[in-house]
Amino acid sequence: MEIRFEKREQLKEKPDWNNLGFGKYMTDYMFVCDWDREIGWHDARIVPEGPIELDPACMTLHYAQETFEGMKAYRREDGKIQLFRPEMNAKRMINSNERLCMPAFPVEDFVAAVKALVKTEQDWVPSQKDTSLYIRPFMFATEAALGVHMAKSYKFMILCCPVGAYYATGLDPVKILVENELVRAVAGGTGFTKCGGNYAGSIAGQVKAEKLGYSQVLWLDGNERKYVEEVGTMNIMFKIDGEIWTAPTVGTVLPGVTRDSMIHLLRDWGYNVREERLAIDDLMKAGHEGKLEEVFGTGTAAVISPVGELRFKDDVVVINGGKTGELTQKLYDTLTGIQWGRLEDKYGWTTLVD
Amino acid sequence: MEIRFEKREQLKEKPDWNNLGFGKYMTDYMFVCDWDREIGWHDARIVPEGPIELDPACMTLHYAQETFEGMKAYRREDGKIQLFRPEMNAKRMINSNERLCMPAFPVEDFVAAVKALVKTEQDWVPSQKDTSLYIRPFMFATEAALGVHMAKSYKFMILCCPVGAYYATGLDPVKILVENELVRAVAGGTGFTKCGGNYAGSIAGQVKAEKLGYSQVLWLDGNERKYVEEVGTMNIMFKIDGEIWTAPTVGTVLPGVTRDSMIHLLRDWGYNVREERLAIDDLMKAGHEGKLEEVFGTGTAAVISPVGELRFKDDVVVINGGKTGELTQKLYDTLTGIQWGRLEDKYGWTTLVD
Repeated sequence: MEIRFEKREQLKEKPDWNNLGFGKYMTDYMFVCDWDREIGWHDARIVPEGPIELDPACMTLHYAQETFEGMKAYRREDGKIQLFRPEMNAKRMINSNERLCMPAFPVEDFVAAVKALVKTEQDWVPSQKDTSLYIRPFMFATEAALGVHMAKSYKFMILCCPVGAYYATGLDPVKILVENELVRAVAGGTGFTKCGGNYAGSIAGQVKAEKLGYSQVLWLDGNERKYVEEVGTMNIMFKIDGEIWTAPTVGTVLPGVTRDSMIHLLRDWGYNVREERLAIDDLMKAGHEGKLEEVFGTGTAAVISPVGELRFKDDVVVINGGKTGELTQKLYDTLTGIQWGRLEDKYGWTTLVD
Repeated sequence: MEIRFEKREQLKEKPDWNNLGFGKYMTDYMFVCDWDREIGWHDARIVPEGPIELDPACMTLHYAQETFEGMKAYRREDGKIQLFRPEMNAKRMINSNERLCMPAFPVEDFVAAVKALVKTEQDWVPSQKDTSLYIRPFMFATEAALGVHMAKSYKFMILCCPVGAYYATGLDPVKILVENELVRAVAGGTGFTKCGGNYAGSIAGQVKAEKLGYSQVLWLDGNERKYVEEVGTMNIMFKIDGEIWTAPTVGTVLPGVTRDSMIHLLRDWGYNVREERLAIDDLMKAGHEGKLEEVFGTGTAAVISPVGELRFKDDVVVINGGKTGELTQKLYDTLTGIQWGRLEDKYGWTTLVD
């Protein structure tokens, strides 16, 4: 893949590195590549970040044929920049696209495009503790047509934005509401993909949780509303009586990169990780019996999100006194240590940008 | 609602009215209205149809917060133009938007906007038999932000395009494949809405059916994959032993305007219409026992789509010798008669554009 470069006349002003938030400041450039049925992928380019023109009959605006990924570039203490398992994002996007009947963007081109864009934007990768450059690859149908079908043309793009520390003052446990009416995913559906529709459908659950004073929603399976699956937009893990439980990725659960990395670490540390279905009733029972030792969400944005309280209908369980657990903290320290290059990467998970 | 008008410098050339197809020729103008949290809906306008500018971080391109409607304007024999139950589309969009956490566009403004646009485009409403002006209202999030949340800004737009006769040579029965792996909707999900995600997820089923030589897919319920729900992007009805069966609209099935209108007609004609769950096994059994008299899909585009063959796994049932049934034909003739103004509208379903 050759990538052409279109220079920006005037670079943007850099934001306050100590006040980045999430997704607020797009960098100077974006990666764009077009696909159509006749010639496949073509015209890979890095161009000034800015508005795009779309036909109002563009199929994405009507039928949501769209998928995305989320990943980060990390500034190491020696000033070098590294990515974390980028090929996993590339492969997952291909899996998402297959379910949505969208074309695959090849893994090696995906990684090359991410590296080329991050290299172009190296001055945008912050160096303050726990800050990073968030990378958003996404693909969407561009054909202008009102019939429902596989589109004849697509755009693959990558945006970047520097993001601040997720936890300004250390890990901060959240309160979670178990949702027992709304459903995020069902076997045979799109739950295992990062397609737009999954996220549009989930907002109502999040709004409902917030109204009741909870900051996230825990989704149950769509068939029986009995088994725990994901929390908000993260995977979730439970330490019960010394073992780690997490939902298997069998069609309804996103195969998270952070989830997979945690499982590797945990097994290396001798933990029995059970990728099995866990009934919400058994989970709450374990909580009341004092066996639910730690609960945490895992995802790219927060890395780990400790859970201090779970509510299912009128039943409430407080976990570890509402404080971050020891294992949760150790996982966070280890994974972020590898990601920011402070710890040895014996798994070969990181790759330098240049 | 006041609607400002922006004149087009040069009108488009009209297409060949005898060769319109579906969704190929957009008219000269489109309706646009903006929403933001501070001032709500504002700047309603009819402007030249053409590309729109979107920020690449626009939430619709990532999280598919988008809904749409489909309806038609019909040219009567006296030259006047009429709509068919437009307030039902307006109300359904409000229901869709509520599930997706999107703002409501008021029913009276929706109907007024459709009427104003159709009036502007009256020269685009074709008069050939069974042709019409297809109308596509749609709404999508416009806020540029990468966090998953209710957007702070939206656009509501309406496009129009003249469409040809769906059946060039009379009703034409289709062969349908019953899908038993992929799932379209589940209770607690978004199945009852016209949101983009439902359609993106359904394309794989359509592709699979076509590969096996079937033209549409019949979806089963997402919980047990046992009960029939919808066909392709239409509702579906079965005439079994003199009674009409169709799936109840209880959360997973789109409450179709055509479906509702057919039910009214059928009940007026003395039929017992059972809006009840119907197991695929019972349906196939009725077919083999000679009790499955007619099957037809119902929707805005085709009005009615007779089904000549049903396949579930290795079991095949041919319906009415593969020919269009008497009742199917009568429903088609009656409803299209009302829509195009050839028959008396005793239900008050039609409304003139001026």
